[in-house]
Amino acid sequence: MFVILVYDINIKRNKKVLKICRRYLNHVQKSVFEGVITEAKLNRLKDEIKTVICKEEDSVAIYEFETLKYSSKEVIGLNELGDNIL
Amino acid sequence: MFVILVYDINIKRNKKVLKICRRYLNHVQKSVFEGVITEAKLNRLKDEIKTVICKEEDSVAIYEFETLKYSSKEVIGLNELGDNIL
Repeated sequence: MFVILVYDINIKRNKKVLKICRRYLNHVQKSVFEGVITEAKLNRLKDEIKTVICKEEDSVAIYEFETLKYSSKEVIGLNELGDNIL
Repeated sequence: MFVILVYDINIKRNKKVLKICRRYLNHVQKSVFEGVITEAKLNRLKDEIKTVICKEEDSVAIYEFETLKYSSKEVIGLNELGDNIL
């Protein structure tokens, strides 16, 4: 499946979450990741994130899409990812 | 259609883009918006953004989904938006 992960993390924990996400997904913008991932790996990613963040302060939103049909992506300005899955 | 808009904007222009996006979409996280929007309104939003940003420095990624079928969203930690379209 294709996922978009966005986070808003306290500066104290930001680097840790960044490192975790980088192992699973493509880094699109400062706090935005995207990519194709299996359900098993996505669950592992979620578990790792849960061990690091503080649920009362931090926020991680994960959008999951089983198909990329009828979807598209447009970038205005810098396209840090360059090549595009979507 | 449903869109997710994420941006990485130079601090000088950040507030302007935030104000524009707020008029069209729901503010989910610092630099993340989502919501259902018509094609016409989305085009107007894109045009307004293009008049404000510096394409060499700023980045705005817009994910467009014509259907929300086979998709879901999970939030770990703070859910600033509360109610959920997805």
